[in-house]
Amino acid sequence: KTYRIATIPGDGIGKEVVPEAMRVLDALAQLDGGFQFEWDILPWGCDYYLEHGEMMPEDGLEILKKYDQIFLGAVGLPELVPDHISLWGLLIKIRRGLKQQINVRPAKLLQGLESPLKNPGNFDIVVVRENSEGEYSDSGGRMHSGSDEIAIQNAVFTRKGTERAIAYACELASKRSKKITSVTKSNGLSHSMPFWDDVFHDVVSKYDELQQSSAHIDAMAAYMIMKPAEYDVVVASNLFGDILTDIGGAIMGSIGIAPAANLNVEREYPSMFEPVHGSAPDIAGLGVANPLGQIWTGKLMLDFLGHEQLGEKLLSAIEYTLKSNIKTKDLKGSATTTEVTDALIAYLKQS
Amino acid sequence: KTYRIATIPGDGIGKEVVPEAMRVLDALAQLDGGFQFEWDILPWGCDYYLEHGEMMPEDGLEILKKYDQIFLGAVGLPELVPDHISLWGLLIKIRRGLKQQINVRPAKLLQGLESPLKNPGNFDIVVVRENSEGEYSDSGGRMHSGSDEIAIQNAVFTRKGTERAIAYACELASKRSKKITSVTKSNGLSHSMPFWDDVFHDVVSKYDELQQSSAHIDAMAAYMIMKPAEYDVVVASNLFGDILTDIGGAIMGSIGIAPAANLNVEREYPSMFEPVHGSAPDIAGLGVANPLGQIWTGKLMLDFLGHEQLGEKLLSAIEYTLKSNIKTKDLKGSATTTEVTDALIAYLKQS
Ligand SMILES: CC(C)[C@H](C(=O)O)[C@@H](O)C(=O)O
Ligand SMILES: CC(C)[C@H](C(=O)O)[C@@H](O)C(=O)O
Repeated sequence: KTYRIATIPGDGIGKEVVPEAMRVLDALAQLDGGFQFEWDILPWGCDYYLEHGEMMPEDGLEILKKYDQIFLGAVGLPELVPDHISLWGLLIKIRRGLKQQINVRPAKLLQGLESPLKNPGNFDIVVVRENSEGEYSDSGGRMHSGSDEIAIQNAVFTRKGTERAIAYACELASKRSKKITSVTKSNGLSHSMPFWDDVFHDVVSKYDELQQSSAHIDAMAAYMIMKPAEYDVVVASNLFGDILTDIGGAIMGSIGIAPAANLNVEREYPSMFEPVHGSAPDIAGLGVANPLGQIWTGKLMLDFLGHEQLGEKLLSAIEYTLKSNIKTKDLKGSATTTEVTDALIAYLKQS
Repeated sequence: KTYRIATIPGDGIGKEVVPEAMRVLDALAQLDGGFQFEWDILPWGCDYYLEHGEMMPEDGLEILKKYDQIFLGAVGLPELVPDHISLWGLLIKIRRGLKQQINVRPAKLLQGLESPLKNPGNFDIVVVRENSEGEYSDSGGRMHSGSDEIAIQNAVFTRKGTERAIAYACELASKRSKKITSVTKSNGLSHSMPFWDDVFHDVVSKYDELQQSSAHIDAMAAYMIMKPAEYDVVVASNLFGDILTDIGGAIMGSIGIAPAANLNVEREYPSMFEPVHGSAPDIAGLGVANPLGQIWTGKLMLDFLGHEQLGEKLLSAIEYTLKSNIKTKDLKGSATTTEVTDALIAYLKQS
């Protein structure tokens, strides 16, 4: 079996970490023997924009639809291309165009990784983020000028979208420790968030076995610092999920390591796997970027392709490099990007 | 000189900590000898709502306008009154009705308080939050029903409001360490946040001496955990300021201790001083609530009234109780609410 993967290294360190993760996934496929990857490199992103005036070709989404999955590095070169162009022209366009409506991001205490928290506990959280609507909306605009100028940003929540995210989170919670927390801000945002609360109530009430709770985003941000081990599955809107997953990266010990999956749960179109970190242009090209976020992202792709055992193996290999202190600079190590990957692959082959 | 203070203990532990802070402020006034407080207790809040169907009297805002300042405990009893009623009927109504357009919240590593961070550094941040508009808007609504239902929440940013908050933050930064960070999410929210960035650019360019930076809310939430000591003045929208200040409370070691000021900078109407923490109905009435958030809030009121030296004195007294381990349960101590206050007042009198 061959998985055809649309591979978008993107910008900055994306170009360095994607090839590393490809090497790892190829090694795993070889070990397994039952499948292989075919990586088609699509050179889309800010360089492409600077040349063509768009982040990807006109028919980019059609091209992507022909693949099994999408493996993306990072997008953005804010010095040259304004963020809202680079992201809405690629990342967010793909998320929406291919109906990748669910974003799944684990935040888990890894052995060998130093959390900035004194007592992190053995936390193991999965944040399920609504990925297609909500606060990330291009509805709105600006009017008047000078001191009268105003800007309006409209957040749009549909019952279908909200229900889908919450139902996915409930299913996931049923398979894990049966705890689910919904995050809103219904005391401040008086339309969207009470609506989310209502939908959460409706959906979760069908899952008798789940222990459910709700928290406001401000409190939840604090709880992720004070008592992360008390949470399991956390479900939140597009914006709140975004914020909570960066906090998740921070308490793990590095945003450079956090993985993400943009899922088309119905498998009508390919899903997209991308790490939480950005393109980090400041360290690009130096060979010091941490490849573990991209590699862990590869685990999420393996899981989604049904190779969960290989995925587990990959996660232990990640932990092995950390415990062996084969770490990049961001984790206070001195290994290069390639050295980390080499050690990881060697471990996989020998174990 | 007599300061007439509209005193709203509110709900839950608000009723316990407000009288404690009043005792402290009275003691300071007596030490100073130059002024006194007159505390008028206004029994508004959820109990009032359950009796009268509204959180405060019809002419509540008019009543408040006659006072010098407002000292508030906490509002909310979510079991009995939905949050969006209790808050929009009192807290948010006062913030807006009395044009308290700037919310100021320090987050500072206090001696004697254990931060959950391994290496917090000696952080000393002030978050300036736009307090009157933005994401907290009652514009929006719901339409259709069943699976077609949608909810819309409109965030509204005006140049005046945005400018006012940023200008206040710039002034503050000029008086402190001359560093200012603006927090947005212009890569995801494509109207409001690029607008905020533009206004920030316009205002900050008038302050040559300031070292300025911008961060996205997701990254900033992570930075507050990873390197809080690198920040000084942080300016953000209503929602983002809300989130960052709870994170500020968490990294200090307790949200129970964080203070806040809702300022009417032009002093046209009274300002309102309220701690960040909520009404904590679960521990209300037990005499174990931490009074330090309310007391530190009293310091912000003293500062605003021009008694900055007394304010400094009060902050050292707070640190004294912490260093002496006279702490309430939330800080792993065994002192009661009253014992903490007694010790603090004794220290003030003797020093
Ligand atoms: C209670 C709530 C509406 C309020 C807010 O979000 O402003 C609170 O969280 C705060 O920070 O004062
Ligand atoms: C780059 C940005 C638009 C994106 C987001 O907010 O979704 C990023 O922060 C993420 O979390 O993937």
